[in-house]
Amino acid sequence: MENIPGVAQDAVLVQSSEMPADSVTVKGYDFNQGINYHALMQSYLTTGFQATNFGKAVEEINKMLDKRAEPISEEEVRSGTELNPCHRTKTNCTIFLGFTSNLISSGVREILKFIVQHNLVDCIVTTAGGIEEDLIKCLGKTYIGDFHLKGATLREKGINRIGNLLVPNDNYCKFEDWIIPILNDMLKEQNTEGTKWTPSRMIKRFGKEINNPESVWYWAYKNNIPVFCPAITDGSIGDMVYFHSYKNPGLNIDIAEDIRLMNSQAVYASHTGMILLGGGVIKHHICNANLMRNGADFAVFVNTAQEFDGSDSGARPDEAVSWGKIRKTAQPVKVYGEATLIFPLLVAETFARRVNLPHCDQDESIKESATSK
Amino acid sequence: MENIPGVAQDAVLVQSSEMPADSVTVKGYDFNQGINYHALMQSYLTTGFQATNFGKAVEEINKMLDKRAEPISEEEVRSGTELNPCHRTKTNCTIFLGFTSNLISSGVREILKFIVQHNLVDCIVTTAGGIEEDLIKCLGKTYIGDFHLKGATLREKGINRIGNLLVPNDNYCKFEDWIIPILNDMLKEQNTEGTKWTPSRMIKRFGKEINNPESVWYWAYKNNIPVFCPAITDGSIGDMVYFHSYKNPGLNIDIAEDIRLMNSQAVYASHTGMILLGGGVIKHHICNANLMRNGADFAVFVNTAQEFDGSDSGARPDEAVSWGKIRKTAQPVKVYGEATLIFPLLVAETFARRVNLPHCDQDESIKESATSK
Amino acid sequence: MENIPGVAQDAVLVQSSEMPADSVTVKGYDFNQGINYHALMQSYLTTGFQATNFGKAVEEINKMLDKRAEPISEEEVRSGTELNPCHRTKTNCTIFLGFTSNLISSGVREILKFIVQHNLVDCIVTTAGGIEEDLIKCLGKTYIGDFHLKGATLREKGINRIGNLLVPNDNYCKFEDWIIPILNDMLKEQNTEGTKWTPSRMIKRFGKEINNPESVWYWAYKNNIPVFCPAITDGSIGDMVYFHSYKNPGLNIDIAEDIRLMNSQAVYASHTGMILLGGGVIKHHICNANLMRNGADFAVFVNTAQEFDGSDSGARPDEAVSWGKIRKTAQPVKVYGEATLIFPLLVAETFARRVNLPHCDQDESIKESATSK
Amino acid sequence: MENIPGVAQDAVLVQSSEMPADSVTVKGYDFNQGINYHALMQSYLTTGFQATNFGKAVEEINKMLDKRAEPISEEEVRSGTELNPCHRTKTNCTIFLGFTSNLISSGVREILKFIVQHNLVDCIVTTAGGIEEDLIKCLGKTYIGDFHLKGATLREKGINRIGNLLVPNDNYCKFEDWIIPILNDMLKEQNTEGTKWTPSRMIKRFGKEINNPESVWYWAYKNNIPVFCPAITDGSIGDMVYFHSYKNPGLNIDIAEDIRLMNSQAVYASHTGMILLGGGVIKHHICNANLMRNGADFAVFVNTAQEFDGSDSGARPDEAVSWGKIRKTAQPVKVYGEATLIFPLLVAETFARRVNLPHCDQDESIKESATSK
Repeated sequence: MENIPGVAQDAVLVQSSEMPADSVTVKGYDFNQGINYHALMQSYLTTGFQATNFGKAVEEINKMLDKRAEPISEEEVRSGTELNPCHRTKTNCTIFLGFTSNLISSGVREILKFIVQHNLVDCIVTTAGGIEEDLIKCLGKTYIGDFHLKGATLREKGINRIGNLLVPNDNYCKFEDWIIPILNDMLKEQNTEGTKWTPSRMIKRFGKEINNPESVWYWAYKNNIPVFCPAITDGSIGDMVYFHSYKNPGLNIDIAEDIRLMNSQAVYASHTGMILLGGGVIKHHICNANLMRNGADFAVFVNTAQEFDGSDSGARPDEAVSWGKIRKTAQPVKVYGEATLIFPLLVAETFARRVNLPHCDQDESIKESATSK
Repeated sequence: MENIPGVAQDAVLVQSSEMPADSVTVKGYDFNQGINYHALMQSYLTTGFQATNFGKAVEEINKMLDKRAEPISEEEVRSGTELNPCHRTKTNCTIFLGFTSNLISSGVREILKFIVQHNLVDCIVTTAGGIEEDLIKCLGKTYIGDFHLKGATLREKGINRIGNLLVPNDNYCKFEDWIIPILNDMLKEQNTEGTKWTPSRMIKRFGKEINNPESVWYWAYKNNIPVFCPAITDGSIGDMVYFHSYKNPGLNIDIAEDIRLMNSQAVYASHTGMILLGGGVIKHHICNANLMRNGADFAVFVNTAQEFDGSDSGARPDEAVSWGKIRKTAQPVKVYGEATLIFPLLVAETFARRVNLPHCDQDESIKESATSK
Repeated sequence: MENIPGVAQDAVLVQSSEMPADSVTVKGYDFNQGINYHALMQSYLTTGFQATNFGKAVEEINKMLDKRAEPISEEEVRSGTELNPCHRTKTNCTIFLGFTSNLISSGVREILKFIVQHNLVDCIVTTAGGIEEDLIKCLGKTYIGDFHLKGATLREKGINRIGNLLVPNDNYCKFEDWIIPILNDMLKEQNTEGTKWTPSRMIKRFGKEINNPESVWYWAYKNNIPVFCPAITDGSIGDMVYFHSYKNPGLNIDIAEDIRLMNSQAVYASHTGMILLGGGVIKHHICNANLMRNGADFAVFVNTAQEFDGSDSGARPDEAVSWGKIRKTAQPVKVYGEATLIFPLLVAETFARRVNLPHCDQDESIKESATSK
Repeated sequence: MENIPGVAQDAVLVQSSEMPADSVTVKGYDFNQGINYHALMQSYLTTGFQATNFGKAVEEINKMLDKRAEPISEEEVRSGTELNPCHRTKTNCTIFLGFTSNLISSGVREILKFIVQHNLVDCIVTTAGGIEEDLIKCLGKTYIGDFHLKGATLREKGINRIGNLLVPNDNYCKFEDWIIPILNDMLKEQNTEGTKWTPSRMIKRFGKEINNPESVWYWAYKNNIPVFCPAITDGSIGDMVYFHSYKNPGLNIDIAEDIRLMNSQAVYASHTGMILLGGGVIKHHICNANLMRNGADFAVFVNTAQEFDGSDSGARPDEAVSWGKIRKTAQPVKVYGEATLIFPLLVAETFARRVNLPHCDQDESIKESATSK
């Protein structure tokens, strides 16, 4: 009998060091306990891969919310209020929420509306589409479609595709009817009252004008939550500003004032947390503002982008640490995945539990016997 | 005043055709209703992007399970039994479940164990790691780690990393102790009783020998569910077969018999459904067997791969239609995402509802008032 | 002998229709012909997967360049000049080039500089980082690093990471020294001469001030190529504008004028082509401007994003067709991949061949015998 | 005048430590030098992101080839020959090449054929499709198609889609005609001569029988390069083995012998390098064999998979280090990207330069003046 090659045996059967005493064992949910979603969500922390990252993101957001709920001295509130040009009462943890426009096009809009309605975040950054699609949804519907509908056929029908969603182009015509009078008023105020329009001021005005409790920006207006959108002209609002420049020229949109206002949100904060859904300008803008205070205390990223292309969108939180945008001591979390799947569940385990709701949680209720489907 | 360029105005303000009457409006969950996870999961169908695909996957799996629950004539059962060399009572819809080894390493193992324990699928395909990691977990623990622990340091400690999981190498030493006597017995049976070992026969034997209700393969053995793994030597089992070839030479592992047995699962099925978690050989193997019956009736893919590289892993279900692996009339669904996040929730909305469980579902229970966290 | 199950045999051995007569056979490069890179690049069209898409992208860009080189009537030039508020001589195909800031951080900057230096595109859109990193590179170096250097350690050293690149923070200090006097001058001109600063006007000024032939924006200034950056405050320039608002308050940056100027680039174009490297605002902004002319004639996307998350970044060109941003008759191409790998090669096969260069192409030179490495 | 908030100024203007003296500056190719592709490829090392990884991969493969070209003592050759059951002369660095079947379907097949023809690698692992598609291409053509052709329509025409490639189903009928007589012969030899068929022995036989210099496996046969494919039944070969089991039953395919042969390639190697194109079983199989020698000395991965899902396909090389599959001292490289784009260029900079070819390299030939396109 030949011997097993020694190199192979030694390499395969290497002995292990002891695992640290506090090591956590991988263990998934046991459905024999019943279908208890809250327990299932809690089991994600020990399930591994992105389930574990989801579990950590729940913890990180709950840390933000706990910190935010802590009392804050009157002096500190006052100092923030005096210095911060945005008239909003300071919380002990300023939560920055950023998201791309596709989430407003999707049903995540209702989740975001809930958060803003209940005043659970302190500063929002989105893209032009993130602003206008919310307003447009108050004027016309967005429909479920398919990722593979043919573009030429859709264009002939005047139907615009966003992933597997469909937006009739008539919605944008209705938007024109709605916004042009507002732009006229804004121009008049600029010329007569000296109002300097910035994206944040415009969004506040739009939220007021839409006057619809289904709108995210209505609630941001009501709750005095500042909303930033530096490239507000990059979408249908820009189309309308462009048309308006022919119809009624002269409107200015200044972004210099907004960068100071945005940075002030971070500079005068007691603590900060960032929740970033997607990439691009919304991710960078919130991170960059947090550099102004030498880094956020808490951070959760949810996106599908990867780091290998050197994009800011795909950069892991640790890249932001190198820039001073997240504190060296923070424990930021990135969940790799698509936000419509992940964010509603994150909210169910965090924000929604901070609101006094009709309750249907089942923590202690393993009691009834099964039903079919 | 200048005029708006006509081309711009015409292009931007194109009129839409009517949307079809049955168009579905995008609408997300309203947490003001309370935290009702089952309702939340149901809202995913109208949430858009991958939430919608998740909702469709729930429907598709429920269709498989409904079809499977339908009665089947005695004649048809008999014909299947006679011709099918696997001694398993035929259902009206043969559900093929495929998954990669990382899911067994993760806590999804417990979810898979539940499905197999309750005999809810009819045929399984996995990789070598998918077989051995389940058995090894009966011998030693897998731990939560981190994606960025340094490889050289881990190797020095004899700790193997799988994504953000850690497996002490001692587990593999224990596995050697466990499996070598079984391989000895198998060789003896081969030589004395003429047993022809195939991967499926080996897995059945391992499931019997492990004799542990935490093991997926224990339950597959108990429930007589065939499990295929054509490349069973590609992992620790292969290492052990390699070592065994020195210690006690002569064991053969035939894969020709298994391809016939595998294909028979599809050929003699009344209907078939495929649930494929991940890519590679497990995805192709199940699809290819379904070609033998001119295509599966139902299919759900969950993976992170993309089609642009021409890989089978990333191929959309529609590519399988071109090959006759999915029926032209089927409505297959691909959910783009990571399985630890998605599959437990899919099971909560499908398989788990087919078992008589202690119940904690909350469909009708919007009653209690809120709690914090 | 049993018979092969008929369903299996029929399904596997389906007969094919004839392929169309003009079908192209898959065929890769044969290195036995020698190492001829131009021939290798040409073979990509028939190599399949993304190599084929690369080959199509080469064709599409060459179509843009051919169209652009066609003569244009004086009348048409004049009409464009009169109406277009940007003082640039109109070409027969306005090529829009968009790219994200990471490409300026990378060595693709030199490739982009070449294109702009030789006046080969007509309109550029980038992000704030895309503007400032080019200028900063004239003041300090960017270095090759590693994707996995630890953020906390880097922050302690004042070294910022961008993917696998490193930028010493001192570079940003030098940038402050450089830009603050310019911002002072700009404010003075605003206040004394009534200059209305827009991002495009600022970028032109920066290009003039940097006065360095290594800079992309220097050449854009020299060649009078308009450069747009609607969110110009989202980066170090924004930091400096923020600081400047304390040191010397009052600078305004208007983005309303720029949206009209940007849209005019498309509206008054004879034909248009889009080359989009990366996603986010740069991709959307160029596409949206092309809606104003009912769609671009030519389009090439190079990025790593996927459509499944409903992002604009990941949207296939066909989604833009549904919006009227690309013409229904166009043949747009998306190459799925990372731009540092792909774009230099695209340029080698397109733009670089339109410039009178010292030549080292080897089309006809299969002559010498081999060398080692 | 207010003061700039101190925290912001301090955080933004952090001072840097000195960069190490050997730091490499980011610098891209300057096309003003002319279109010199070899120089362009060399510039990738300092271009950043995946271009840098490409440059490192070129260096890593060249290190493998340099090591392989070093002389090896007669004693060492003999020891390898005696112990290694594969009759192949040992080189000083055993290069393992793994690739998925889609690359054989694509034009990369010609690149792979070149490498095998010139005997530049020592051991190959592929999937069933990787074996059969090469043979089938000797019997019928594969065509360029489109990723979005409709599956149902294609199935009606008997045309199979692989990404953007099309394979008429008739090719598989021709393959049946070709392979069934060979399977008959194999069965006869098994029964009369006691031949034990393993995947590697089958592939060698197929390479001999196809007898076509366009085939990769023909050259592997000619050059006595072992080719492994543990799941050889997972594809058309499996379909044929399945049919054959009805027509002419009894053929066995043993994979136990192959795992020993595969591991021996690593165990008795002087040094090893791995080049892995794609993921799944081919990646794991080669890495696992290299565990048997406590790790490969050199490794290059090219694939599109990501680590976040805990898949072996997406695992970074450093995960393999933790397992002892790559040496702790190695400098493995992963290029994130699609192989049809990347691998031909990698070969142009490495393998192709080791063969005495008609030469068309242009290193020193910056001489001619420009041509158009």
